[in-house]
This record gives sequence, C-alpha cells and structure tokens, in this order.
Amino acid sequence: MGTKERREREKDQTRTAILDAARELFVSLGYEGVSMRAIAEKIEYSPTVIYNYFRDKEALISELCQSDFGRLAEQLQETARISNPVQRLRQCGREYVRFALSYPNHYRLMFMTPYPLRAGDPQFDQHKAEVKGNPETDAYAFLLTLVRQVAAAGRLSGPSPNIELIAQTLWAGLHGVIALEIAMGCDKDWTAWQPIETRTEAMLDAMTFGLFTPSPAPHPTTPNAEEPLNRKQAL
Amino acid sequence: MGTKERREREKDQTRTAILDAARELFVSLGYEGVSMRAIAEKIEYSPTVIYNYFRDKEALISELCQSDFGRLAEQLQETARISNPVQRLRQCGREYVRFALSYPNHYRLMFMTPYPLRAGDPQFDQHKAEVKGNPETDAYAFLLTLVRQVAAAGRLSGPSPNIELIAQTLWAGLHGVIALEIAMGCDKDWTAWQPIETRTEAMLDAMTFGLFTPSPAPHPTTPNAEEPLNRKQAL
Repeated sequence: MGTKERREREKDQTRTAILDAARELFVSLGYEGVSMRAIAEKIEYSPTVIYNYFRDKEALISELCQSDFGRLAEQLQETARISNPVQRLRQCGREYVRFALSYPNHYRLMFMTPYPLRAGDPQFDQHKAEVKGNPETDAYAFLLTLVRQVAAAGRLSGPSPNIELIAQTLWAGLHGVIALEIAMGCDKDWTAWQPIETRTEAMLDAMTFGLFTPSPAPHPTTPNAEEPLNRKQAL
Repeated sequence: MGTKERREREKDQTRTAILDAARELFVSLGYEGVSMRAIAEKIEYSPTVIYNYFRDKEALISELCQSDFGRLAEQLQETARISNPVQRLRQCGREYVRFALSYPNHYRLMFMTPYPLRAGDPQFDQHKAEVKGNPETDAYAFLLTLVRQVAAAGRLSGPSPNIELIAQTLWAGLHGVIALEIAMGCDKDWTAWQPIETRTEAMLDAMTFGLFTPSPAPHPTTPNAEEPLNRKQAL
C-alpha cells in the first residue's frame, strides 16, 4: 500500500472515530450539550484535529444526521419483500417512528427545528444535490415511491389522486406522533398518553382507513367517494 | 379610588404593556432573538422594572403563551354553535392550525421543544393546577369533550372506543401538519409542498374517514369494523 493510500485510510478512520464519538455524546447529552472539545477529549485528540475534519459543530452534526438517516433509508429498502403495498407502507411507518425515537436528538435537528442544515448552507446544498429524488437515499422520494405503489395497486380513490398530497399527509401523521412524543412525552401528568406503539398503530389505522380504498377501484374513471369502505379489507 | 386600588391598576397596566411589547418582539424576532433589555427599551422602562414583574425571559414567555393560548380556547368555544359534532371538530382543527401558524414562535415553545414551561417549574405547576381538565382553558380537555360529543352522536366504531387514543391521534395529525410547516416549510426546494390549507383539509379528511363512522352505529354492542363507510356521509 502506498503512502497516499495509507494516509487516506487513516483519514477515513479518524473521521469515523470522530463521528462515532459525536453520535454517542449527542444522543446522550443532546445537541446543546455537546462541544467540539468534549468530542476531542473522548477520542483523545486535540480539538485542532477535529477542526481539520469539520469546520464546526453544525457541520459535524449535519454529516452525522445524513449518514444515520442514510441507514434508515437502507433499512426501509428491506421492506421491498412485503408485496402488499399498504402493508409495506405501514411497516415503513413503524420503522420510521422507531428510528426517530431511537435518535430523538437527530430527529429534532432534522425535522423539528426551523434552522439548520438547510437552504443556503453549501454542505447541505451539496448533500441535497447528491440524494434528492433518489428513493435509495432520500426518504421523501422513497415515500413517494411507496404511495405510487399503493396507487398502482388501485388502492387510491379518485381518477387522479394527488400523490404528493397523500405522501405529505402520511408524513405529517407520523411526524405528529413522533414530535409530540419527543416534545411532550415527558409531561405524563397533563395528558393520559397511550403507549407510543398504540398511538403509532392508531395513526397508521386512521391513515389506512382514511386515505386508501380496500381494493382496486372498479370504475377508475370516476371518483369512488361513494364506494363502501370495508375496514378489514383496507389493511 | 383608594391608593391601593390605583396602584393595583397601574401594576396591571404595566404588566399588560410588558406582555404586549414582548409578544410583538417575540413574534417578529423569535424566542432566541428577544432580550429583557429589548423589551424594556420598547416600552421605555428600565430592565429593573421588568424584572419586578417577571423573574426571567422564560417566565415572561411562559405567561405570554398561557394567555394567548387562553384566547385560542375562547375562540374554540364559539364553535359550540355548530351542531354536527364532526363538523365542529373539523372547524376547531382549522382554527387550531390557523392559530399555530399565526404564532409559530409561541407554538414552537409550547409544543415543539422538549424543555420549557413544564414539570418542575413552580409557575407552570400553578398554571396547570388552575386550568388542567377545564375544557374552557385546557385545550386537551376541550379536545376530549369534542371527541365525547362525536361518541355521543354514535359516530365512533366499536362498543367502547378509546376516547383518549382518538383525541391523541387527532392532535398528532394536526400537530404534524403544523410542525412540518413551521420547521420544514421554508425548504420549498426539496419537497413540492402542497398549500397549507390543502394539507390541513387533507388531514381532516383522512382523520374523518379514518376515525369516524358515517352515522349512528346500528349495533352499538358489537364492533362495526365491517360497516360500510360512505365517505360523503362521514363528514
């Protein structure tokens, strides 16, 4: 192995070590509680080394979220083995909720705070150019694919269902369950919160019964708003 | 008017002036952007005066949220004139979304951040003791009342529907629409966001079709999971 290759490999290893240390601290202490210095101490480097890899805490956390959400995307690909598209979508929903609640600080940063990692940030713009619209890396594109599969199975009502609107409604429903749990779940005293798994299934049921029809629409050219909906069949 | 009464009235006026100034700054600059000093400057008092009324920014913002959400609660009471309980609930949902998006910083602080104004804070505990469970001041208790009205009209399926679970699903659905709009709405570039009014109605439709039955359940002693759901009737 040449000197250049060895150096590249060492750089990759250091980068991974920094990300692993940051993830651990970030998950246990929260975004505000992690400093570049604390990450450096954890892996016994000087803070200067870390700054060679990440220009600031925001950049580090941004990369961490992107790579961890990439892992969720890979996990979701595995649901391809579920042939019923509504069941597949439900399973993806469950995994999305489970992932979000395993990494609540990542989730807060990605989807619950109005500012970071978005428009204008050059690193974010580059990330977006790489993943946007690719269902293997972009969770929203993946969700659109799932909804299109439901549509292809004739399980959406109306002659030209709005795929984006249905995807955004599904996302909002699951996001609501997750975000209330992260922000309000601690306040058990005010609200008699049902178990999070129960709330997730209730949301998936409401969405399934509310957005999908039980079987291929018999008259795809007319809205089937009048079609009876058999709740068991809708699953 | 005695000296004591005049003093009380002056105190109330000062308090209101502080709250009004804080609200204006808070809505335009966001939670992080407002300082006690800036509020004092706006009403031409010294910061010391403000500290006589509120021990810190958190306490001030807390009272502001409580009083403004109280106003939402009053607004929602006005929907009592709508006799159809499902229509009433939908109208309340619309007003909740509209309120949240008119005061996104209040909403973020109340429902999107895990920390402030909650358990352990003596001011919050006192507030809770005053409003909790009272549908006129506690939005969650009000939502439970709405769901109970839907139940009383025979519009929930099953012999003993879980009122809390249905309320939490409805809240999560609307919260999801609001919270995604506040946190992600700026990123128009990644997601082809449908107009917020369209997303709100789509969520209300999904919830209506997904959670409610179209008419009084004919056999209230058996789950009517097999009852056909006529989408128009469900409204």
